[in-house]
Formats: sequence, structure tokens, C-alpha cells
Amino acid sequence: MALDRLIEKIVQMQNPTVAGLDPKLDYVPEFIKRECFEKYGRNLEGAANSLLMFNKALIDELYDIVPAVKPQAAYYEMYGWQGVKALCETIKYAKDKGMYVITDAKRNDIGTTMQAYATAHLGATDVDGEEIEAFSADALTVNGYLGSDGINPLLKVCGERDKGIFVLVKTSNPSSGELQDKKIDGKTVYENMGEMCESWGEAVKGKYGYSGVGAVVGATYPEMLRELRSKLEHTFFLVPGYGAQGGGADDVKFAFDKNGIGAVINSSRGIMCAWTKKDGAVEKDFAKEAREEAVRMRDDIRNAVGEMKL
Amino acid sequence: MALDRLIEKIVQMQNPTVAGLDPKLDYVPEFIKRECFEKYGRNLEGAANSLLMFNKALIDELYDIVPAVKPQAAYYEMYGWQGVKALCETIKYAKDKGMYVITDAKRNDIGTTMQAYATAHLGATDVDGEEIEAFSADALTVNGYLGSDGINPLLKVCGERDKGIFVLVKTSNPSSGELQDKKIDGKTVYENMGEMCESWGEAVKGKYGYSGVGAVVGATYPEMLRELRSKLEHTFFLVPGYGAQGGGADDVKFAFDKNGIGAVINSSRGIMCAWTKKDGAVEKDFAKEAREEAVRMRDDIRNAVGEMKL
Repeated sequence: MALDRLIEKIVQMQNPTVAGLDPKLDYVPEFIKRECFEKYGRNLEGAANSLLMFNKALIDELYDIVPAVKPQAAYYEMYGWQGVKALCETIKYAKDKGMYVITDAKRNDIGTTMQAYATAHLGATDVDGEEIEAFSADALTVNGYLGSDGINPLLKVCGERDKGIFVLVKTSNPSSGELQDKKIDGKTVYENMGEMCESWGEAVKGKYGYSGVGAVVGATYPEMLRELRSKLEHTFFLVPGYGAQGGGADDVKFAFDKNGIGAVINSSRGIMCAWTKKDGAVEKDFAKEAREEAVRMRDDIRNAVGEMKL
Repeated sequence: MALDRLIEKIVQMQNPTVAGLDPKLDYVPEFIKRECFEKYGRNLEGAANSLLMFNKALIDELYDIVPAVKPQAAYYEMYGWQGVKALCETIKYAKDKGMYVITDAKRNDIGTTMQAYATAHLGATDVDGEEIEAFSADALTVNGYLGSDGINPLLKVCGERDKGIFVLVKTSNPSSGELQDKKIDGKTVYENMGEMCESWGEAVKGKYGYSGVGAVVGATYPEMLRELRSKLEHTFFLVPGYGAQGGGADDVKFAFDKNGIGAVINSSRGIMCAWTKKDGAVEKDFAKEAREEAVRMRDDIRNAVGEMKL
């Protein structure tokens, strides 16, 4: 139930990290682009197939050591429906390799519309009596600004189909405080949102103490990470901001509980673009370099956090 | 600039409404579905083509009297990338007929990721030196929970390409108050968000007093609509909640300024499903019935608001 499958994979691999798949075309090695442009044209289809080929090569190198991937929807939508098709195929490919897939789409709406997003990204769509999975990730990031009407439709799908969500609580960006840090009766907006996560989570409890409603909390605000970890006992954290955005293992360690669980740390550019940051690394080894960086990150965080136990 | 093209169309047609295109398959007449399932199969492709055929027929009946359409992304994503392709083709079809297109996707993220959404939905994607439009609506709904980092990338595209955004301020749903009505130093969260809209709008001023940064404010909270109209002088409103959600012309009239401009009122199910709500109406006339309801809605609101002047 809930986020338990993710937690089990993390403990099994002793690796609390997720590889972000945010494939801008600029990040894709030239030889892949050349091949795809030749085959599909220098158009959205060629671009989308470049992303897919890039992702598949990364997944092939990562799936046995990294428990999860997090494709970011924006980078696929940028390449039109062809890009969204690449997102769909990336999710399927990663799941077939046994990875846990978190679609980072920060969706939000109300009632039947939110139900449509829940169906799209976590459920199955009814087409004249046939149930067909559209994207069907394992978890989805969402924005809770609209309150319970925007979250309840997701809880239903999470309960029925063993899926999870991550609600934006305290984001990693510099301006996140403009609204999130403001105080409502002495409590910040992000604390309020965190408490709502705890309350929404009661409907989708998990067996390791964490519910199916997780929270996004940025690595760039370590004190808030520590504060939220102690207050939100049943809320699992998805932590962006490690690496490229400036967070380190000493920052993210506050996201974990005494058993070394409670969070999954994301790195996107750090892994995808590892080969560009290493002296002497060559383009054709981009996936091997990504694996090496994923191992380095795993060990970096494991050293700070210690063993992960269920 | 900004939302001026929308305002001009509203005044020209003396119609401050937008037709929501939220085509659940259940709303699509049987004869369309039969034709598409036969041609493409009872699968996501067949479903997506049903939506597209439905939308095109509605647009054909509406484009000369309704200034804008608002496709809701969730209902397309529900049918996979095939559905997203139908969204893309719907946008193109409506624009070719001269309609103003607001993609209701409530996107939100930060920095380069938000830039990717901005490029996807309002801009043009660079593919190896070629600029290709992916979805390219005229305006996009967005969620401002992440602060300026999530809005600035949009302002750039709005300025460069004459586009607009609508930020969620006070949504129409029952639970919207859980966060939005809470008070920060005596001011509600939605007021704070509204003030941020005013401030973001300064970068994309328009010639009729309204900036390129609009706000979503629900028809179901008429007092707040009135309060926000008086406080947010340069912020144009997109108002959901008329009709099916319970708002009437006497509620939405508070969204307009003394010149009868300042807002566009949405109706989705009311228009799309008009034929199902009228005694004696038959399925094959769904588009004509939609037009009739659009005319009724226009006149209803025009009676309450008066003439619209630039």
C-alpha cells in the first residue's frame, strides 16, 4: 500500500535516491540526436525520440542500483504530444525494468477534473468499458493550493491501485518563501500544508509508518527539513535540490528518521549530465558516467544517514 | 500585448464568456464515438479522436459568437498521449477559426522547468535551431504556490510573444478556503496571491488597464469576487463556477469594472452538454444546442453587466 513499494526498494538497494529524468535536448549527446534527426526529422518527433533513447540508455545503467526515476513532465510537454508520448514510453520502460516511477507533474485541480488527472497519471481510463492505462506511474507530484477537493480524488486511486502522491510543501527554490513561509496564526503556510498531508494520509496508511501522501520538501532549506521531519511523522519526503541546486548530504540527512528511512533524494542534472562535468569523460560514455555519479550520490547519502531498516 | 487581444474580442462580440472544452468521453454523443471507434478502434486513439471531432463541431458553432475556448488539459491527458495530441489539434483548430485559446492546465514549477512549461504551452521549442510551436495557446492557467521563480519564466514569454497567464487566486471549489481563506497578518492567502498578481503584472502591462497576469477567481464566492475586483485594479479575472457549479449572472457581475470589462466567465458542461438538459433536444443537434446555450449565457451576463466598452 501507499509508498511502501518505494520504501521496500530503497531498503533493498540501501539507496534512498531517485534519478530525475528531465531531458532537455541540450543534455542529450550529439550522436543520439544525429541518429534520431536522421530517422525522424529535425522536428518534434526527432527530438522526442532523442529524449526516449537517452532515457532508455540511462535506465539501462541505473535500474539495478537506483530504486526510482522521476520524469519531469514539463521537459516532455515542451516537445509537444510527441514528447508526451516519449514520457509515456519512458514510464513504461522504467516500470518494466522494475523501477518505481514518480511522475513530477505538480498537477492540481478540483473534483472531476482532478479525478481525470488521477486517472491519467495513476489510474486506468474507461474507454467504452475497456480499462486502459494512459500513463500509470507509481506516484505523482501534486499542488495542494486548492485544498481537499483537489486531493481526495487522488486518495481514492492511491487506495485502490497501490499508488502514492507527493504534495508540494516547502519547495527548494529561492522565492518559495514568498507565500510558503508566511505565517497563519503563528504557523507558516508550509506547516499548514504539511499538516494537511498528515491528515490526508490517514485514508491511505502504509505498513512502515508512512502514508501514501508524501511531501515535497527542498534540500536547500535544511532547518525546515529537520523541523518538518519531526512534525510530520507519517509523511514521506521527496527531496529535490541535492547537487545542482546546492544541497549536500549533510543537508538532506535531516529528512530521514532514526531507521534511515522517510525520504528519497532526487538528483536530475547531476546524474543525467555527469559526463559533462568530469575531466576526460567522453560523450558516448554518458550512461556509464551517470551510473558512476549515482553510485557516488548513494554512498554520499548513505554515509550521512547510515543503514536503512524496515 | 498581454490579455489585450482577449479583451478586444470580448468587446467586439459584446460577450465576456469562454467555452470550456472539458470533453469527457461520457459527454461525447454516441454517433461520434461509434464512428471513431470503428475507424481507430475502441482504444485511446479512438477515444481521443472522438474528443477532437466533438470539439471541432462545437468550435464550428461557437467561433463567431464566443471569443474564447478553454480546453482543460486533464481531460485530454486522461486519454494518454493520443488525448494530448487531440488537445494540440483542438488548440490549433480554434486558433485557425480566430478564437482566443486559454489552456487550463494549472502548471507550476520553478526556473528552467517552468521555462519548459512556458515554452510548451505559450512559446516555441528550439529543435536544433528550428523554432517549433508545441501547443502554443494564447494564455495558460498557472498555480503560484512556488512564488516568483515559478512566474518569471512565464512573464518573459508573455512579453515576447503577446501571451497571458491566469494565476489561481480564489478557486470556485468548496474546500478552496482550507488554505486560501486563512489569514497572514490580517490578509487572506488569496489576497496575498492577488497582490502578487498585481506586482507580477507590472512587467507585462496592457493598453486597456489590465496586465498580462490575470487571476482565477471563482463565481461561487461573489463577495470575494467583488472585494478582489476593487483591490486588483490591473488584474483581469477568469471566472469559473457559472452554471453547473452554481454561480449566476448576479454573482459574476461583480467581476466587471465600470466599463463592463475586467473578466471572462467560463462555462464548460453548461455549453458542452446543453442538449442533454433540454426537453426534446436530440443528440445530433448537440452543437446547435451548445450555441443556443452560449447565446443564452451571453445575454444573461450582458443583461447583468451592461455594455462593454474599451
